[in-house]
Amino acid sequence: MKTRVGFIGLGQMGLPMAVNILKKEGSLCVYNRTKEKAKTIIEKGAHWVDSPQHLAEESEIVVTMVANDEALKEIVEGEFGILNCSNKPKIHISMSTVSPHLVTNLEKKHQEKGIGFLAAPVSGRPERAQQGALWIFLSGRESEKKEAIPILELMSVKIFDLGTNPSQAALFKLCNNFMILSFIESFTEAAALLEKGGISIEKAGEIWGSSLFDSPVLHSYMPMLSKGNFADGGFALDLGLKDMRLLHECADKANVPMPFLGDLHEKLLASMNAGRERYDWSAIAMLTRELAGL
Amino acid sequence: MKTRVGFIGLGQMGLPMAVNILKKEGSLCVYNRTKEKAKTIIEKGAHWVDSPQHLAEESEIVVTMVANDEALKEIVEGEFGILNCSNKPKIHISMSTVSPHLVTNLEKKHQEKGIGFLAAPVSGRPERAQQGALWIFLSGRESEKKEAIPILELMSVKIFDLGTNPSQAALFKLCNNFMILSFIESFTEAAALLEKGGISIEKAGEIWGSSLFDSPVLHSYMPMLSKGNFADGGFALDLGLKDMRLLHECADKANVPMPFLGDLHEKLLASMNAGRERYDWSAIAMLTRELAGL
Repeated sequence: MKTRVGFIGLGQMGLPMAVNILKKEGSLCVYNRTKEKAKTIIEKGAHWVDSPQHLAEESEIVVTMVANDEALKEIVEGEFGILNCSNKPKIHISMSTVSPHLVTNLEKKHQEKGIGFLAAPVSGRPERAQQGALWIFLSGRESEKKEAIPILELMSVKIFDLGTNPSQAALFKLCNNFMILSFIESFTEAAALLEKGGISIEKAGEIWGSSLFDSPVLHSYMPMLSKGNFADGGFALDLGLKDMRLLHECADKANVPMPFLGDLHEKLLASMNAGRERYDWSAIAMLTRELAGL
Repeated sequence: MKTRVGFIGLGQMGLPMAVNILKKEGSLCVYNRTKEKAKTIIEKGAHWVDSPQHLAEESEIVVTMVANDEALKEIVEGEFGILNCSNKPKIHISMSTVSPHLVTNLEKKHQEKGIGFLAAPVSGRPERAQQGALWIFLSGRESEKKEAIPILELMSVKIFDLGTNPSQAALFKLCNNFMILSFIESFTEAAALLEKGGISIEKAGEIWGSSLFDSPVLHSYMPMLSKGNFADGGFALDLGLKDMRLLHECADKANVPMPFLGDLHEKLLASMNAGRERYDWSAIAMLTRELAGL
């Protein structure tokens, strides 16, 4: 018998992830704050329920993928939240990018209720989500990880084990995003100077993409960076700012100076002021160019 | 008939590059400021001459690979420099990492003397130099590039054409080093925080090395970064500082703000003060850890 899976959060990442589970499992229970976004997956055969609580009552494994700490807290601890369910699911797999502190806190509350809790944030843009080719950073109790892996495999190309403490995967995910944005910043600083020296960003991308920086991160961002078209990008800049703020909190608590993180934070803030909060977060490149007089 | 090639600068990079030419061409004329360093290649059959001037007189193609602007200027314009030769070589291929401004200046002086001049700085650590697997950034006149390529191929795995202006390859090389050091800085900032969260640098390297940052730059630096052993590294920190200073000059002249470059500059300066000038330049990681209390 198939595992009964429920999925909460049908945004730009969550929807394709849920579709991949539905396709391969044959059934899926879904909930989203705005029902409108569930329309296509309901047409594909997903079963709609009207609250996280009811979804939890009908599922063995609950998967959540939402935008931020507040949304996840509401889903878990709100009036019709997961923790109010009568019939308990076995595990809640939290795939959102949220603060490690919240993850630790939620793990405790799930344990008190007798529900397993795993952190499994993902890396990869919406295209990879559609292809079921995400990278997943997984942490939590061993037995629960074992049960979750067959479901996670439906969405991913690789699952990395980050240990038994759910906050570890959460922290790794924030660092992962920091690494991506640092790469974008260094590339665009160099590209601005190269452009003034008569070397195009496409040329730079072509050279680095076939030598030292031949990597998924470069190949995934080059089309956007070379076209300079960030308006319909996949990962909104305000969500990127949220992540860098969460990471800064972690670094501050742990007494780890991160000068690059400081620079990125400032570029994101100035990009917000320029009205780019819904652009892809690599739009910090626009600011780098503007500051360079390009 | 083989081209008569002369090679000046038998340091950590120059020596293995020269050895590769000697092996495949069968003969090579060499000069180095301190003859001691030429000992092994002379034993292998290279022909020693006692000045850049004499080397130029005996060669059709002169290749130079020295540490900095001053050394290159001395080789070219010094009392027994290349430009004083009576019997002219066809082309001088300058492979050192030097300022784009100097390169433009030297190109002009070579042209006045009727000698071709190409900039062909390389990327890749000494291991790659030994394997003849460097990446070369080449710029200069088309006809001269064509003549130089067979010689450059003896040392490289790929040659990238950066245009007709020698300063372009010089600028690209500086940006290339900036990209590398930025990667090291972002990785080590993240790694310091992760270590405090219970995730080792090896683990982080393993995950990023098989997902987003699966790239030659990561794989080439991971052994050193994970062992934390920078003392016998391949690219001296004081040379790295020299490159970042040259890049800063270029960025300043071109009015391109580069905040990451500023951070790197400060880390390099503080590392010099810590007595690490002859460590590998990735030793900025040591400072990041120290500042984090690790």
